[in-house]
Amino acid sequence: MKRLGLVLLSGGLDSTTAAALARRQGYELSALTIQYGQVHGREIEAAGRVASALGLKHHVVDVSFYKDLAWYSALTSPERFPIPTERPPEAMAADIPVTYVPLRNTFFLTLGAAWLESEVLAAVEVQHEAPAEIVAALFIAANAVDYSGYPDCRPEYYGPIAEALKMGSKMGTQYGIGFSIETPLIDKTKAEIVRLAHDVGAPLEHTWSCYRGDERPCGSCDSCLLRAKGFEEAGLLDPALVVT
Amino acid sequence: MKRLGLVLLSGGLDSTTAAALARRQGYELSALTIQYGQVHGREIEAAGRVASALGLKHHVVDVSFYKDLAWYSALTSPERFPIPTERPPEAMAADIPVTYVPLRNTFFLTLGAAWLESEVLAAVEVQHEAPAEIVAALFIAANAVDYSGYPDCRPEYYGPIAEALKMGSKMGTQYGIGFSIETPLIDKTKAEIVRLAHDVGAPLEHTWSCYRGDERPCGSCDSCLLRAKGFEEAGLLDPALVVT
Repeated sequence: MKRLGLVLLSGGLDSTTAAALARRQGYELSALTIQYGQVHGREIEAAGRVASALGLKHHVVDVSFYKDLAWYSALTSPERFPIPTERPPEAMAADIPVTYVPLRNTFFLTLGAAWLESEVLAAVEVQHEAPAEIVAALFIAANAVDYSGYPDCRPEYYGPIAEALKMGSKMGTQYGIGFSIETPLIDKTKAEIVRLAHDVGAPLEHTWSCYRGDERPCGSCDSCLLRAKGFEEAGLLDPALVVT
Repeated sequence: MKRLGLVLLSGGLDSTTAAALARRQGYELSALTIQYGQVHGREIEAAGRVASALGLKHHVVDVSFYKDLAWYSALTSPERFPIPTERPPEAMAADIPVTYVPLRNTFFLTLGAAWLESEVLAAVEVQHEAPAEIVAALFIAANAVDYSGYPDCRPEYYGPIAEALKMGSKMGTQYGIGFSIETPLIDKTKAEIVRLAHDVGAPLEHTWSCYRGDERPCGSCDSCLLRAKGFEEAGLLDPALVVT
């Protein structure tokens, strides 16, 4: 079996764990980092270091234009949506949050699939690998525990998008090779992800989770706090916080 | 019924016909023009004139980066794929041509869907339209007659992509509004498209089909010849060729 994989790599803890797991599973892995107007470049730098540490081909693409299309979101048009500091719990359960970005994961998976399909077609048509011997997988660190409201983070979404990608592709319709969409973190808590990262040797020392772009993680933003809680519950030290 | 539509508008004859048809059907229509490294800007200029003539909101996005991802194609990497001047007819029927660009229509439809969903969410959440009264449609001028080999120009592709877009969206999962993917030209010959364009009053005088970027269409490239044949068979004059 020839395993060709692509991981959507943000440079954070979750996607780095997914990447390390994919390598452990024997995938020849490419990493795609998608930049869409983040305020700082720390995550992008982190993604580059993670890709080097794991020996991955790596592309960074700037898709800032996407904000103008997917404009109805507190993430792409913050001036239109003052993020409420408190929401009643029943609204949380019923409604998809205003931070939902239209079709974001469909967009990201399609970009990854375009690159992965190119690698697969080259394997079949240039290297003459047998299609029946090829597995093609897209790894995405989607999580339905932290982001339970997002439609494109729920397990029910991944079957339909895999089918659409297959039906719209040459590798799917001519060679019968589908896109296996791998969501290894979908039902895991942060502590479980930290333990998995440890087990598969994910290079967490290179990752970046802090919402701020200072030289070191701030330790006080939501993302730093969630990460710290994960390590604490897992009973592990965060290697990114070790001062070298 | 409130009809919100989006058309993928290249500035050529086919997509302009689809846009004019959508307007005739009563859609409030936005037009998205996607530029990915075309050698000249004539089509983009034409798309702008068509959008003005039909009174459409219009975005042009530059997605040149897509070439580096979807690299396995004679269109994105011409140096790797010398396009054969002749292909045996049996290969034409069996194989998807080397000009296939990985996941191109899935990518284009997702960009259009992100904009259309934003308009729909604003209609529901800001203008308080009833979701049951909203129809949302993506118009794409795909054609299975001229491009029979492409997987993403076949009718069987459009059901799965509509389902995936719905399942990955807030408008689909929270409000029950699906994306209706409209392919009004899918089984039409060029002559039938020209006749339809005439019937719906498409502003063909503003369109551009020529592969070259000179001041006037060359009249001799494949695209000019196909267009001329369509007008001839339809028994109509091409308004873009009238010297003013």
